[in-house]
Amino acid sequence: MSEYQPPLEDIDFALNQVTDLASVAKLEGFQHADPDTVRDILAEAGRFFSEVIAPLNRVGDRQGSRLTEDGVVVTPDGFKDAYHKFVESGWGAAHIPEEYGGGGLPYTVGIVLQEMFKTANMAFSLCPMLTQAAIEALIRHGDDTQRGLYLEKLVTGEWTGTMCLTEPHAGSDVGALSTRAERQPDGTYRLFGQKIFITWGDHDLTDNVIHLVLARTPGSAPGTKGISMFLVPKVLVEADGSLGRRNDLRVVSLEHKLGIHASPTCVISFGDAGEGAVGYLIGEEQRGMRYMFTMMNTARIGVGIEGLAMGERAYQLALGYARERRQGRPVGGDPTVQSPIIEHPDVRRMLLTMRSYNEAMRRLLYVVARHVDFERRAETAEERERHGKVVALLTPVTKAWCTDLGVELSSIGIQVHGGMGYVEETGAAQHYRDARIAPIYEGTNGIQAIDLVLRKLPLDEGRVVHGFIAEMRSVAEPLATVDSKAAARLTEALDALAASTDWLLGRLAGGSYNDALAGATPYLTQFGTVTGGWLMARSLLAAHRMLEAGEGDARFLRSKISSASFYLDQLLPRANGLVPAVTAGAEPLMSLPAGDF
Amino acid sequence: MSEYQPPLEDIDFALNQVTDLASVAKLEGFQHADPDTVRDILAEAGRFFSEVIAPLNRVGDRQGSRLTEDGVVVTPDGFKDAYHKFVESGWGAAHIPEEYGGGGLPYTVGIVLQEMFKTANMAFSLCPMLTQAAIEALIRHGDDTQRGLYLEKLVTGEWTGTMCLTEPHAGSDVGALSTRAERQPDGTYRLFGQKIFITWGDHDLTDNVIHLVLARTPGSAPGTKGISMFLVPKVLVEADGSLGRRNDLRVVSLEHKLGIHASPTCVISFGDAGEGAVGYLIGEEQRGMRYMFTMMNTARIGVGIEGLAMGERAYQLALGYARERRQGRPVGGDPTVQSPIIEHPDVRRMLLTMRSYNEAMRRLLYVVARHVDFERRAETAEERERHGKVVALLTPVTKAWCTDLGVELSSIGIQVHGGMGYVEETGAAQHYRDARIAPIYEGTNGIQAIDLVLRKLPLDEGRVVHGFIAEMRSVAEPLATVDSKAAARLTEALDALAASTDWLLGRLAGGSYNDALAGATPYLTQFGTVTGGWLMARSLLAAHRMLEAGEGDARFLRSKISSASFYLDQLLPRANGLVPAVTAGAEPLMSLPAGDF
Repeated sequence: MSEYQPPLEDIDFALNQVTDLASVAKLEGFQHADPDTVRDILAEAGRFFSEVIAPLNRVGDRQGSRLTEDGVVVTPDGFKDAYHKFVESGWGAAHIPEEYGGGGLPYTVGIVLQEMFKTANMAFSLCPMLTQAAIEALIRHGDDTQRGLYLEKLVTGEWTGTMCLTEPHAGSDVGALSTRAERQPDGTYRLFGQKIFITWGDHDLTDNVIHLVLARTPGSAPGTKGISMFLVPKVLVEADGSLGRRNDLRVVSLEHKLGIHASPTCVISFGDAGEGAVGYLIGEEQRGMRYMFTMMNTARIGVGIEGLAMGERAYQLALGYARERRQGRPVGGDPTVQSPIIEHPDVRRMLLTMRSYNEAMRRLLYVVARHVDFERRAETAEERERHGKVVALLTPVTKAWCTDLGVELSSIGIQVHGGMGYVEETGAAQHYRDARIAPIYEGTNGIQAIDLVLRKLPLDEGRVVHGFIAEMRSVAEPLATVDSKAAARLTEALDALAASTDWLLGRLAGGSYNDALAGATPYLTQFGTVTGGWLMARSLLAAHRMLEAGEGDARFLRSKISSASFYLDQLLPRANGLVPAVTAGAEPLMSLPAGDF
Repeated sequence: MSEYQPPLEDIDFALNQVTDLASVAKLEGFQHADPDTVRDILAEAGRFFSEVIAPLNRVGDRQGSRLTEDGVVVTPDGFKDAYHKFVESGWGAAHIPEEYGGGGLPYTVGIVLQEMFKTANMAFSLCPMLTQAAIEALIRHGDDTQRGLYLEKLVTGEWTGTMCLTEPHAGSDVGALSTRAERQPDGTYRLFGQKIFITWGDHDLTDNVIHLVLARTPGSAPGTKGISMFLVPKVLVEADGSLGRRNDLRVVSLEHKLGIHASPTCVISFGDAGEGAVGYLIGEEQRGMRYMFTMMNTARIGVGIEGLAMGERAYQLALGYARERRQGRPVGGDPTVQSPIIEHPDVRRMLLTMRSYNEAMRRLLYVVARHVDFERRAETAEERERHGKVVALLTPVTKAWCTDLGVELSSIGIQVHGGMGYVEETGAAQHYRDARIAPIYEGTNGIQAIDLVLRKLPLDEGRVVHGFIAEMRSVAEPLATVDSKAAARLTEALDALAASTDWLLGRLAGGSYNDALAGATPYLTQFGTVTGGWLMARSLLAAHRMLEAGEGDARFLRSKISSASFYLDQLLPRANGLVPAVTAGAEPLMSLPAGDF
C-alpha cells in the first residue's frame, strides 16, 4: 500500500456537500466539470500522486537535492523520471485555461490536485507550484512575444518557473531590494544582483528554467513602487523557440534546511560574469509589485494547502501506527492481551484532533477556491467583485491558519508514535520538519495577520468582514435543530469573533494602528478557528440531511458527524480564549524597552 | 559572546522572591546554602556551562555520536575534553548528599545547575542526568557492596549510568518486557535480552558505563509486579575496584533521530555471546518497578527542565536576531531606515510569549524543587508527607506542560528568524528538533496526564489538589490591590480549574474512568497554564513590593511586571478555552469505530 491514500470520500463530500461544486460547473467555461466527471478525474489523479509521486517523499528527504562542483543541481533518485511522467500526465496543466493549452478545470478542482501533490510529496510539489506562478504572471502581464516563446512549455511543464524576490536585506520588506536592471538599446535589460531563497531555482528535471526576477531600473522610485519584473531564462531562447546560450546567472549555493530537502533552495547570482543576465521586462517598468500582488492570493492559498497536506499525511501515518501498535490495555479491556493504541482515549483525542482540523482546513480551502472561480467567471462584474473581496479577506486566514495547524498536527503525529516518532526512519519527523517552512514563506504568518487586520478588515468600511460573519451566523439556526450544544458553541464563538472584529475596526478608525497590529496574530487564529467551526457545522448538517434522506454511506456520514461534533464542542472553544490577547492593545507589548527583554 | 548566557538575574529573583530559597537553607544540612553563597555558586557554574558546554551544542548536532564498525560509540569533537572538565569541576555532584561524596546542595539549587547544563547543551546533559538516576537507585536501594564499588565513581562522574527499560514491545507498557535474568549459584545473575532507546548507552567519555536494567526472573509474576532491577556494568569491576573483563553486552546500533544527535540512543543486546551478561540484583527480586517509581519524580522533573531549557535557548537566539535584524518600519517610524524587527508589535508578541512562558516554567520548576527538598528534609514526618504529595501532584504537570511549551516556544523561535530560521546554520532549527523528544520520553505526556488524573487527583480524596488550588487562590487578594484586571483573570482561571477538577473527581468517584481519561490531556494543559498564572502573580507581587521598598534594580523589576502582566492578561485566558474538552467525556472519542477513522 502506498504511503499516501488520497481521502477521496472526504474530498468528494467536501466538494459537493459543503462547497457546492455543482454551482461552479454552471459558470461559463466550466460546464464540463460536473461532479461525476470531477469524481473520475480525481480518482485517476489520486492514483498517479499516490503511486508515482508519494513513494519519492522519503528518498527526497534522505538524499536531498545537491549542488555539484560544476554548479549543477542534481535532484534525488527517481525525481527526473517521475517529473517526466507528471508532464506526460498533464496534471500540472489541468486547471490552466484551455486557450493556453491547459485542461480548463475550475480552480476548485485544481486545488484538489495541488492538495494531492503536496500531500504526496511537499518538497517536489513546490516545483510545479512556482511554475504555476510564472504561468499566471505571463498570462496576465506578459506580451504576445513572451507568451509565444515561454507559455506553452511552462504549461506542459517542459520548462519550470521560479520567483526571485528575496535578497539578504529584503525579505518581508521586499521594497528594500537592490538588484538592478539596465535597459539596453535593443529593449532588453541586463540584470546584476544576488537573490536568495529561490525555490527550485535550478535542477536537472528540464532543460530550461524561467526566472521571474524583481529588480530596480536606474532612477526608479524608492521602496516597492520602483520595482519592475523581468523574465530571465536560465538558457536564452531564440526567436524560433530553440535554446541558445546560457544566460549570465549561476547558482552560488543551496541552503541546508530543516526540511523539504528535495527542494533546492538556491542563492542565485545574476550578472556575475560581467555582461549581466539578459532579462525581458514584464509589462511596464515600476509595476512589478502590482503584478506580484495579482498573483499573491493564489500563491498564498497554495501555501495554505501545505498545512492541510502535512496534517493529512501526518494523520494517515499516525492512524496506521495506532491501529497496528499494541501497548497497554484500555479500561475494561482484556488484561491478558495488549490492545492497539487506538483504543486508548488519549490516542483517540490526538487522532480526532488531527482528523477534525484536517477536515476543517480542506473545507476552508475548497470554499475559498470556489470564491476564486466565481471571482474569475461569475456573470456580472458586481458578483465577481463581491467574490473577489471574500477571497481577499480569507486568503491571509487560509495561508496562516492552515500552515500553523500543519506544524501543530505534524507534531501530534510524532507524539502518537511515541519514541518511534523521534526516529527518522518512521517518517513522522519528516512531516514535522517539512511543515515548518509553510508559516514562513510567501509572507510570514505575522505578515498575513497584518494583512488581514490592516488591509482586509477595512474593505468597504468593514462590510465585507461583517457580511462574512453574518453568513457564518446563518448556519446556527439549522444547526440548533440537530445539535443544540454545537449551535450554542458556534454562536458563542461568533459573538466573540464579532466583538474582536469590532474592537479592531474601532482602533483602526481611531488611527490606533499599533493596537490593531498588536492583536493581529491571535485575531487571525480566532478567525480561522471560528471559520473552521462554521464549515464543520455545514459538514454536520449535510451529513445529517443525507442520513435522513437515506443517501450515501451511513458509516461514512456518521464519521463526518463525529469529527464535526468534536470540532464544534472541543476545538472551537479555544478561539474564545484568545479574545483578551486580541483586545489588549499595543501598550503591553511596546512598553518594555528593547534592551530590557 | 557565548551562545548561552545564564539568566542569573531572573534565576536569582525566582529563587529568592518567588521560591523562598531562604526557607530551604533552614532545613537540616542545607544551612550552608544561604542565598548569598548560592548566588556565587550559580555565577561560577553559569560561566562553566556557558563557556565550556554551550559551545559544543552545534558541533554535537552536526556530527552526532556514531557507532564504529568495531562497535565503539564515538562522541562529537570536544565532548570528551569538556566532560573531563565537568568531572573536575564537581558540578555533577553538587546536589548529592555529602555523605556520598557530593556537594550537599539542596535540590532547589541542583535544579538550577541542571537547567544551565540543559540549556547549554541538552543532548550532552542527558549523560549526567541518567548517571544521576543510577546514583539515586544505588543510594536508596543498593547494598553496601554495590555502593562501595560503584557509587563514588558515579558521583564524581568517572563512570556514567544508564536506565535500560524499553524493549520493542514494551514502551509505555513497561510491564510487557521480556528480558530475563537467571540466578547463578554465586548469587549473581545472567541477563539475556535486547533493550532499545538506551540514552547514552555507550560512549567514549569514560572507561565504564553502569547499566541499571529491568528484567524478569524465572517464575516471576506477570506485568510490572514481576520485574526486578539489576546493575550490569559494561566492564566488570573486581572486588578491589579495578576493572576486569568486558561484560557480555554490546551496542547493536544507534538510532538516527530527529534531534539530540550528540546523545547516543542505543540498542543494546545482553547475553549475545551466550554466557549472559553478569548482573547484580538491586534490592529484592520483583521490586524493580517500585524502585523505578521512587526515582520517577526527579527524573520527570528533570525532563521538565528541558522544556524550559529549549524555550530559554530559543528565546536568547531569537532575541539576539530580533535586535540585529533590520526589516521594515514600525507605525510612525522613520521611513528612510529599516528598524530592528524587535520594534514590530507582532515580533514583540512572539518574544514576550517566549519570555513569559519561560519565566513561568522556571518558577514552577524551582517551586517543585523546593517541595522536594522539604519532602526530604522537613522536620516532621507529617510535613515531609505533605510536601511529598504536592510533589506527586505537580510532577506530571511539570514534565508535560513544560515539555509541550518547549516545542511551542522553539517553533516560535524559528518564526522570529523568518526564512533564516529554516536554515540549519542559524541554530533555531536545532532547538525545534531537540525539544521534540521531551514530550515523549520518561513517560509520554499522555501518560503524565493519565497519572495526574487517575493517581494524583484522588490523593487524600481530592484534598491535595483542592488544597493546592486554595493556596493558589490566596494570591488573588493581594494581586487585586496592585492589578485588579490580572486578579480578575486569575480568579476566573482558578474557578474554571476548580470546576474541571470537580468534574473529573466526580467521574472518578462514579467509576467513569474513561470519561476522566478522555479529559486528561486538556486538563493537564489547563492545570499547568493556571499554575503558571499563580506563579507569575507571585512574581508580579514581589516586583511591586521591591519597587515600592526601593530594593533591587528598578528596570529589571519593571520588566518582571511586564512579563507577568502579559502572562496573566493574554496567555492565562487560553486555559479557559480548554474546559469544554476536559468535560466532554469519553463518548465523543470512543463512539467512532476504529475502522472509521
